[in-house]
Amino acid sequence: MKQAIQEKKSNKKRIVLSIDAMGGDLGPPAVVAGVARSASKNPNLHFILHGNQDILNRLISRRKRLNDCVEVVSATDIINMSDKPSQVVRSGKNSSMWSALEHVKNGEADVCVSCGNTGALMAMSMIRLRKLEGINRPAIAVLWPSRSKVGFNIVLDVGADIKAEANDLLQYALMGVSYARNGLNIKNPKVGLLNVGTEEHKGRVELHKAYELIEHNCDNSSFSFVGFVEGGDITSNKVDVIVTDGFTGNIALKTGEGTASLIGNLLKEAFAYTPLSRLASILAVTSLRRLQKRIDPRRVNGGVFLGLNGTVVKSHGSADSTGVAAAIKLAVQLAENNFSEKIAARVASVKTIKQN
Amino acid sequence: MKQAIQEKKSNKKRIVLSIDAMGGDLGPPAVVAGVARSASKNPNLHFILHGNQDILNRLISRRKRLNDCVEVVSATDIINMSDKPSQVVRSGKNSSMWSALEHVKNGEADVCVSCGNTGALMAMSMIRLRKLEGINRPAIAVLWPSRSKVGFNIVLDVGADIKAEANDLLQYALMGVSYARNGLNIKNPKVGLLNVGTEEHKGRVELHKAYELIEHNCDNSSFSFVGFVEGGDITSNKVDVIVTDGFTGNIALKTGEGTASLIGNLLKEAFAYTPLSRLASILAVTSLRRLQKRIDPRRVNGGVFLGLNGTVVKSHGSADSTGVAAAIKLAVQLAENNFSEKIAARVASVKTIKQN
Repeated sequence: MKQAIQEKKSNKKRIVLSIDAMGGDLGPPAVVAGVARSASKNPNLHFILHGNQDILNRLISRRKRLNDCVEVVSATDIINMSDKPSQVVRSGKNSSMWSALEHVKNGEADVCVSCGNTGALMAMSMIRLRKLEGINRPAIAVLWPSRSKVGFNIVLDVGADIKAEANDLLQYALMGVSYARNGLNIKNPKVGLLNVGTEEHKGRVELHKAYELIEHNCDNSSFSFVGFVEGGDITSNKVDVIVTDGFTGNIALKTGEGTASLIGNLLKEAFAYTPLSRLASILAVTSLRRLQKRIDPRRVNGGVFLGLNGTVVKSHGSADSTGVAAAIKLAVQLAENNFSEKIAARVASVKTIKQN
Repeated sequence: MKQAIQEKKSNKKRIVLSIDAMGGDLGPPAVVAGVARSASKNPNLHFILHGNQDILNRLISRRKRLNDCVEVVSATDIINMSDKPSQVVRSGKNSSMWSALEHVKNGEADVCVSCGNTGALMAMSMIRLRKLEGINRPAIAVLWPSRSKVGFNIVLDVGADIKAEANDLLQYALMGVSYARNGLNIKNPKVGLLNVGTEEHKGRVELHKAYELIEHNCDNSSFSFVGFVEGGDITSNKVDVIVTDGFTGNIALKTGEGTASLIGNLLKEAFAYTPLSRLASILAVTSLRRLQKRIDPRRVNGGVFLGLNGTVVKSHGSADSTGVAAAIKLAVQLAENNFSEKIAARVASVKTIKQN
């Protein structure tokens, strides 16, 4: 393990990923398959898999390329998707999730990846990694398919906390800016605050306060503030980072996913309707695959927990090997960019501004 | 006018619509075109158009079928899309919007239709029509394309108010039930409360209180309560009426519209990519039109204002003649079902239950 950390300092940076291998609807086979995909694409990765040793060793032994780059850490308990966060922080100490976070806390890994229960993962992350200095409420940020150049916008918070005060929203803005730089390579991100209208008089009181705070801090950091944005702007190219409270963000995220899924189903039905439309669907199959690839939630998989001492990537619970590999890819990019340190510096810089 | 109301009592009910003809992005031509479409389909309609007499008379004179069923009421002012609600309630007394509402208040029309500024229309409606007895916060309800049998679910509030207490959410549930019956002919609607998870411990305090209130009233009314639902359920068939506060509902609505619009654009791009995909798109044109028709916002046009003494249908600001005709069709169905009286009875019945 120590060796892995030392090798990071060599020319070609080695990234160590701590992976909760028991989480997710599809369980260890999907996780190990995702790890195998990632390992075959990037030889600089080292994986620490946490969970049932027998199961994991059996799955790993079937894939030769994993022999050199994977180690297994035994954890007897599994956090279920229905477990309450308040319970697992007390009783989850022997779980694969806890063990995976512990390795990031101890510096044995650069980043943690889990497809497990989001609420439990956030609660454990807060206890093990602790909140970043200056952060009141950590946030979950997701990549959202959009018309922007890079193809995605960042939305946060999508469900770490159901509330957010004005100052929390400012912190979300700054953390989102850091994520846009290090996760999407956007130099000067455009930040918008989600509201029911773009006019300054609209919306809740805390949003008006947050507007002022973000605007004030905008001069001192390298991002631009586009002001209030509406739900329809989440997919637009007028903004890169959309800031909102976790209740609203969660509803928006799931509404967007639900709408996309409904349209996908209706599209299939429409093409199955007549012989001519069935023929068309055969001819159109590559076009439709192209579209699907563009908006496939598996490819934008990986909510990132922001505002902790360490990076945690939460993969979708239903992630298959493609989804797990996408989450790992994101985790690697953030680790390569020393994301944890950069976000800490950004949050700290704002504290200084506020004290002036 | 009196004659129109009297004729309602005859065998074939005559519906009188009071129409704000100056609102909307496309102005009077789109409104009059929509009125003409509606008039040609339903000979029992009588229209009172409010706005600039010269413009309206000129537009009407071009369409012979409107001679017998349309009258124009002069109103000199126009409410703009950017006007603040607080201002227009003071200065808007000579506007087409005010005049259109006035005719519903006076009993000269059954229902009001406008494509104007939503905030202004709601503020004026509350002043002119007053809130229904027992209602604290009126709501805007929309039809949302879904997997349900009728093809739509009802979501409310989508923006009448940015806040909602537990009791408001109960009232939204009951008004939504009445709308589902009279607008969508659903006998025993399933009601869900929008939250960030379906587990009972999740979400904000007012949602837990609302959960209890709705559950308590459910035994006494003829609807079923499915409990908490998530953003992804808005398009599902597990629920007919989705209840939420106006802030969340507005963001969800616009996020859904934005997602649908993004997918539509990406679909076009995907089909324009190669010669083969362009050929496929020609063959698939009827399939795609079928899909578009299913989710076209113009066809589900018409948010309904609930909780007032009178029915107001708010058409989309960007509505063209198809959109205006869809809003009129919905208004007619509600008027035919004596919706205003039924919703008042439902709200009143609950007051009694609560007093017990």
